[in-house]
Amino acid sequence: MTNLQNALEYAKQNRERFLNELNEVLRIPSISTDAEYKGEVQRAAEWMANHLKKLGMENIEIMPTDNGGHPVVYGDYIRKPGAPTVLVYGHYDVQPADPLELWESGPYEPQVRGDLLFARGSSDMKGQVLATFDAIESVMNAGKLLVNVKFLLEGEEEIGSKHLEPFLRKHAEKFKADVSLNPDAGMMGIDMPTITYGLRGLAYMEVHVWGPKADLHSGLYGGVVHNPAQALTELVAKMHDEKGRVTLPGFYDSVRAISEQERADFARLPNDDKHYLDETGVPALWGEEGYIPAERTGARPTLEVNGLLSGWTGRGSKTVLPAQAMAKISCRLVPDQNDDVVVEQMKRFMEENAPKTIKWEVKKLTGSPFAIADLNNTGVKAMRNAMESVWGTRPFYRREGGSIGAVAMLQQICGVESVLVGMGLPSDNVHSPNEHLHLPTWHKGIDAFIHFFYNMG
Amino acid sequence: MTNLQNALEYAKQNRERFLNELNEVLRIPSISTDAEYKGEVQRAAEWMANHLKKLGMENIEIMPTDNGGHPVVYGDYIRKPGAPTVLVYGHYDVQPADPLELWESGPYEPQVRGDLLFARGSSDMKGQVLATFDAIESVMNAGKLLVNVKFLLEGEEEIGSKHLEPFLRKHAEKFKADVSLNPDAGMMGIDMPTITYGLRGLAYMEVHVWGPKADLHSGLYGGVVHNPAQALTELVAKMHDEKGRVTLPGFYDSVRAISEQERADFARLPNDDKHYLDETGVPALWGEEGYIPAERTGARPTLEVNGLLSGWTGRGSKTVLPAQAMAKISCRLVPDQNDDVVVEQMKRFMEENAPKTIKWEVKKLTGSPFAIADLNNTGVKAMRNAMESVWGTRPFYRREGGSIGAVAMLQQICGVESVLVGMGLPSDNVHSPNEHLHLPTWHKGIDAFIHFFYNMG
Repeated sequence: MTNLQNALEYAKQNRERFLNELNEVLRIPSISTDAEYKGEVQRAAEWMANHLKKLGMENIEIMPTDNGGHPVVYGDYIRKPGAPTVLVYGHYDVQPADPLELWESGPYEPQVRGDLLFARGSSDMKGQVLATFDAIESVMNAGKLLVNVKFLLEGEEEIGSKHLEPFLRKHAEKFKADVSLNPDAGMMGIDMPTITYGLRGLAYMEVHVWGPKADLHSGLYGGVVHNPAQALTELVAKMHDEKGRVTLPGFYDSVRAISEQERADFARLPNDDKHYLDETGVPALWGEEGYIPAERTGARPTLEVNGLLSGWTGRGSKTVLPAQAMAKISCRLVPDQNDDVVVEQMKRFMEENAPKTIKWEVKKLTGSPFAIADLNNTGVKAMRNAMESVWGTRPFYRREGGSIGAVAMLQQICGVESVLVGMGLPSDNVHSPNEHLHLPTWHKGIDAFIHFFYNMG
Repeated sequence: MTNLQNALEYAKQNRERFLNELNEVLRIPSISTDAEYKGEVQRAAEWMANHLKKLGMENIEIMPTDNGGHPVVYGDYIRKPGAPTVLVYGHYDVQPADPLELWESGPYEPQVRGDLLFARGSSDMKGQVLATFDAIESVMNAGKLLVNVKFLLEGEEEIGSKHLEPFLRKHAEKFKADVSLNPDAGMMGIDMPTITYGLRGLAYMEVHVWGPKADLHSGLYGGVVHNPAQALTELVAKMHDEKGRVTLPGFYDSVRAISEQERADFARLPNDDKHYLDETGVPALWGEEGYIPAERTGARPTLEVNGLLSGWTGRGSKTVLPAQAMAKISCRLVPDQNDDVVVEQMKRFMEENAPKTIKWEVKKLTGSPFAIADLNNTGVKAMRNAMESVWGTRPFYRREGGSIGAVAMLQQICGVESVLVGMGLPSDNVHSPNEHLHLPTWHKGIDAFIHFFYNMG
């Protein structure tokens, strides 16, 4: 047997123990958003550090983040000068389990039913993190590790990685690597291995409109004052044209066209019209003309109203002509858009479209950059070949609509591109009751990671 | 001194007590729209009944309305067979006080600053109701009451008098009178006594728009789902055309044209562009092309957005694609529009304009008919002379933008026309923070009511 075959065989022989170890860490309710669970989050960090030690990793540290944030767990194994370095990214925190009454077994009492392992964090993403541990253990114990490895395990992914940016700026050198393996992106379905190579960025704003200096009686003033709530609807309605395109001036100027190869890849994806109709329950889909759903959610920028507020919103009728109105509006950004530029475009839109009857303000709340990986980088190629070896099929290539803070930060601060994969399935109920992990897919994922580490060498 | 002069002198001598009594009832937060305040509304009704008793009124009753609605307070003094009967109308409920942080003193802790008394309900309309009490007390104690009097004090004016119509149908005989004195209409400015001969009606609706079955992640679904908040803004924006006209189908079909004489009367009124600009503080006025402000607020129908609510409206950014969005929308109606017909027109508008990507519902919350009075009735004449005596000037005649459901109901059910007056000023901030009453005008109003009761005799 080759080294690779030995490693794969080792993983197979140790499946039961791997599962027991996963169950161990799933029993820790490391809920990052709830201050009451701060000790549990710390306990999960310590479990991760101990396990890295058992694997043989070195320089292990539980590194604090600013303002008492949850710590980052670091470890490395750098014994191959000149060989590539793989940075494994993961997070050990989980979402809250509410509503508890909808769980069929305790969220922190892992239970296998058939092929599925039920527990909070099983899919998102303790199962994914342990798959990388198990792959490295298999390679190191039964085969040969041909690359250098570093770990970045954070405890705040579920709360927006809020202390990660200053942390990475402080420790940029430590986390430099040739590629980051990020198994938090999931796959499109069973036996549909997937590489996510793009994520959208974000520009989140508040648009405020003011009219009269105070709320007015709608009977006494209705007809002479431009109602700010009405003015806001008129402005927001104008932010899309009849083809579903965003009308902020210059919005598409820096948007990279989708190549013919990408269009062919998008067309292969299973998230077609029917998929979105079934998932969302809407009577009909909507979106920018000329693009299929996978393109509209992954490779085209959008503008969404996240919130509207004006006047009387309680029960019953209040005949008020509101003094002000507010919309929360965010744009999902694609290469090569920039969040600050988009905020300026929104301001220009308002300058050009806001009537003289009102005053307005555009406030930027937050922003994050898009991320996109070169499909020809060595990490992506190594993963593609690994997936082909395990599943016997060419992986799907997709761009995702959401943002993963760590991916953009690693790209911008440390210059590391991420290979986004994972064994999470759309049906895993992540962030919901009865979260679970599909064990046969998990085992294939461990094998794929073993292949990946060999392919990178 | 004549009886009239004695009564006027009595009122002058008792100003401080009258103010103290007003402060007493202003301390009761009788917010009719909020079920939590049901007990306070009841307490205000009891205060009114007790005060009628102190005045010497008879047959006092706190009369329940259907479905547990807020009660009507009744009392009368019928000792002059053959003399005219005046029905005094008032309401003892108030609007909510939100936003509380904008009040300079507590809304239910009356405070005099200079000539102004600050409190929720001071102008709209506990102050007006007590002015009628104080006038009658003065006439009965120091002069001579030459007419019969009845009181109709309701607790649901601020929620569209929703149980008043069935109540009046049940008790039509009890509330028959020769004229109704209704001091809920206000005046155009200090030293500008005003008789209001027309009121707009109201059709108050909620428009709901639904998209996906649950809130979605705006990154994963932005671009394929028609955002209900966006769809709502598109629909609301379409409810006016570029000339400021309402676009509900058939909306203007039954609107009575303004006569040449009325246009001349409207042109005399002081509420011109500058007036509304100063009062509201808006950068520019707005409204239906071809009509001056007094016409737009008095004699033309309008459509107002009273509230907007969708998605995340708290602090900070939440990247939600909301499952639903809601607008509170009300139309002010003029002769010969009908509230139920307008609700049907809104439904037709939605049928014709709502896209297939969303579901919608239009709910009617409340409605009230327009009212218009004959300028030659004896009540109007008695009030005109009373006002001339107190202010030394002929009153202005106008049509008002607000609705007073009771006026139309009394006209339709009991055959009683209303004389619409009041000491509320446009600057009183009714329905807004820092509502107040101009005390010198309030005292003149008490005097005018004393004159009125004599003129009616």
